[in-house]
Amino acid sequence: MSVSEPKGFLASGVASGLKSNGKLDIALVTNGGPLDSVAAVFTANRCLANPIIWSKQVVAGGQAKAVVLNSGGANCYTGAEGFQTTHLTAERAADLLGIAASEVVVCSTGLIGEQLDRSKLLSGLEAAHTALKAGTGQDAAMAIMTTDTVPKMSVRESDSGWKLGAIAKGAGMLAPGLATMLVVITTDAVVDSSALNAALREASRVSFDRLDSDGCMSTNDQVTLMASGASGVIPDIEEFQDLLIAICKELALKLLDDAEGASHNIHIKTLGAESETDAVEVSRSVARNNLFKAAIYGNDPNWGRILAAVGTTNAIFDPYGIDVSINGVLVSANGEPALDRSNVDLSSKDVWIEIDLHQGVHEATVITNDLTHEYVEENSAYSS
Amino acid sequence: MSVSEPKGFLASGVASGLKSNGKLDIALVTNGGPLDSVAAVFTANRCLANPIIWSKQVVAGGQAKAVVLNSGGANCYTGAEGFQTTHLTAERAADLLGIAASEVVVCSTGLIGEQLDRSKLLSGLEAAHTALKAGTGQDAAMAIMTTDTVPKMSVRESDSGWKLGAIAKGAGMLAPGLATMLVVITTDAVVDSSALNAALREASRVSFDRLDSDGCMSTNDQVTLMASGASGVIPDIEEFQDLLIAICKELALKLLDDAEGASHNIHIKTLGAESETDAVEVSRSVARNNLFKAAIYGNDPNWGRILAAVGTTNAIFDPYGIDVSINGVLVSANGEPALDRSNVDLSSKDVWIEIDLHQGVHEATVITNDLTHEYVEENSAYSS
Repeated sequence: MSVSEPKGFLASGVASGLKSNGKLDIALVTNGGPLDSVAAVFTANRCLANPIIWSKQVVAGGQAKAVVLNSGGANCYTGAEGFQTTHLTAERAADLLGIAASEVVVCSTGLIGEQLDRSKLLSGLEAAHTALKAGTGQDAAMAIMTTDTVPKMSVRESDSGWKLGAIAKGAGMLAPGLATMLVVITTDAVVDSSALNAALREASRVSFDRLDSDGCMSTNDQVTLMASGASGVIPDIEEFQDLLIAICKELALKLLDDAEGASHNIHIKTLGAESETDAVEVSRSVARNNLFKAAIYGNDPNWGRILAAVGTTNAIFDPYGIDVSINGVLVSANGEPALDRSNVDLSSKDVWIEIDLHQGVHEATVITNDLTHEYVEENSAYSS
Repeated sequence: MSVSEPKGFLASGVASGLKSNGKLDIALVTNGGPLDSVAAVFTANRCLANPIIWSKQVVAGGQAKAVVLNSGGANCYTGAEGFQTTHLTAERAADLLGIAASEVVVCSTGLIGEQLDRSKLLSGLEAAHTALKAGTGQDAAMAIMTTDTVPKMSVRESDSGWKLGAIAKGAGMLAPGLATMLVVITTDAVVDSSALNAALREASRVSFDRLDSDGCMSTNDQVTLMASGASGVIPDIEEFQDLLIAICKELALKLLDDAEGASHNIHIKTLGAESETDAVEVSRSVARNNLFKAAIYGNDPNWGRILAAVGTTNAIFDPYGIDVSINGVLVSANGEPALDRSNVDLSSKDVWIEIDLHQGVHEATVITNDLTHEYVEENSAYSS
C-alpha cells in the first residue's frame, strides 16, 4: 500500500515504451481534494532538469492536484525542446483531469541529455489516466524504478484517523541535498501548504539528507508531499511531524538497502559533537571515503581510513581524543589502537560505525553503502 | 637517476623486514652540503602521523641534513610509543651521520594503527647508512614503494650547471592538500630555505595539489626539498621555479599513471573560469564523481554526469552556458546535446575533458583516474 491509501488519492502506472525493455515507465498520482496543498524539496544541484524547473514554479504557489512521473529519461540538458516536453506533459495531464497545467507537478528520471519521445510519453499519460484507481499504488511505484530492484512503498496511520502513503525510487547517485530519488508522499490529513512545507523540510533534513550512497548529486531529485484533507481530521502537528519523519526515514533505508551493487548498509554515527553540523560533517566525510567503503566491502575493519576521513573535516575535535567503534568493538581510543580489530565481525549486511568526538552532546547518523565490484559494474557497463 | 644525481647527495635503500615480503623498505637520503637548506609541504589532514608531527618541527628551522623514509607502516595513531619510534629513528640516523636529531626528517607510509618493529627499523637504518652512495638512487625509490608497481624518479638539469633530482611514491589515497605520497627532491643549486619554501609551495600548488586520484587524503603525505649548494651556482629564481614545477608535474603524472587499478588517466581542464579557484573547484568536483569515473572505465562518454558534478560547485557559471568536450568532441553546448556522443573514442589510456564555463580567462587542470574493478579489489582485498 502506498500513495493511494490515504483518502482522496488515486494512482496508476503504465508502460509507454520510454523504457526499451517494456516495463512500466509512467506514473500518475492525483489528489481529488477537498484540499490541494502541496510542498516539495528539490535537488540542490545547480544544473537542473526541465521537470525540476517546471515543478518549482508549480509548488511555489502551494497548490497541486497531480504528479506525473516518468522513468526512461531525465529530460535534463535537452534544451528548449526538452522544456516544452515537460510543459506539454503538464498540459495533457491537466486536460485529462480537468484541472490547470499549473496544478501538475512533473518528475523525470533516467539518462541526462536525451530527448524523451513525446508521442510515447503523451499516449502513455492517457493510458495512465484511464488506469487511475485506489488500491496499492504498486504500479506507480514500479513505473518510477530505474536501477531499483524492488518497488518502494510505505504507509503510516494515525490513531486520529488520517494516513500517510508514499512511493519512492532511487538506487544510485544517492547524495544529499537531496539523495537522488523521486518520492511522492500523500496524506488525507487536513494540513495547509505552509505547514506541509515546514514538516517536509524538517523530515528531509534528518532522513533523505543523511543518505549518502555515493556522494553524487542528481539533477532530478524531488520529494513531493500532497494533502487532500479527505479524512476531515486536523492532525496534531507534532504527531504529523513524527509520522512524516518516520515514513521518510523508512524510505531512506529502503533506498539504502537497494543501492546499486552494495553488499553492506553502513550506519555512521558521530556522537559527542560540539554541534549537529559537526556530527553530520564528520559522518558524511567517512561516508564519502572510497578507501573506507572498499575496506568494508572486503570485511576489513580498517579504522585508520575512518580517522583519516575525520581528519579532513573542519569539525571541532582533538585528533588524539577520538574513539572509534565498529559493530560495537572499540578499535581505537585516544589516538591509539584499542581492542584488536580482528574482534570485529563484518559478515552481516548492516555495519555500525560510532565516532565519539568527546566535544559535546550532539550526534547524527549518515547512512551509506560499501564500494563494490557490482557498483563499478552497474555504473560502467551501460549509460544511466 | 634521482635524488643522488645533484652534487652533495647520497642515497640508499635496504630491506629491513618491515615489509613481510622481504622487499626494500628503508630509504636514506643525505645532504653533505655545504648548504643544508630544506623546505617541505605536508598533508592538510588534521589527523597526522607521528613522522609528520616530527618533521614539521625539523623543517620549521629551515635546515636538515638527512631524510629517513620507511614503507611497511604509517606510524599513525600509534600513540606515545609510535612517536618515540620516530624520535629514535631520527636519533639513530643522527648518531650514524654525526649530525643532530633535529636535522633529520622522517617519513613513513603504510597501514595506520600498527606499531613499527623498532629493532627491524633501527638495524635497517644502520644498513641503509652503510649502503649510502651516489648513483641512481633507485634503491631509495624502491624502498618507499607500497602498492606502487614501479619506482618513480626524475632529474632536471639547468644549463647554468645545477640539477634537481627526485624520488616519489604514491598509488592510492591520492588527493590534494597533498596527494597521498612521499616525495624527496634534491638540488645542488645555491638556494636558501626561504626561497626553497616559496618555490616548493608554488610548484606543489599547480602539480601535486591538482592530482586527485580517489578523493582520499592521507595522514602521512610529505614533499621534502633539500638544497646542498654543492654546484656553487646561484640559480636564476625564475628558472629554478620553472624546473621545479616541471619536475613536480612529471612526478604527479607518474603517480597518476601508476594509480591503483586505474585503466584511464583523466585530465579534466576547466577553462573560461572567472577565477583559477573556480576552475580548480569545477575540475576537482568532476574528478571526485564516482559515477563519472565509473563511466570512463566503461568507455562511456557520459557527459550528463560531468554537468551534474559541475552543478554541485559554487563556481560562477550559467548552467545552460557550459560547453563540454571529451577527447576533442564537443558533446554538449548551451544546455543541449551537441555532437553525438558515439563520436568519442575512449579506447586510449589518456582521456581529455574540457569544460568551458564562458565566464572569464582562468583555467586549471585536475588529473584523476577512472573507478575500476581493480581499484575496488586493491582496496578491499587486504589492509593498506
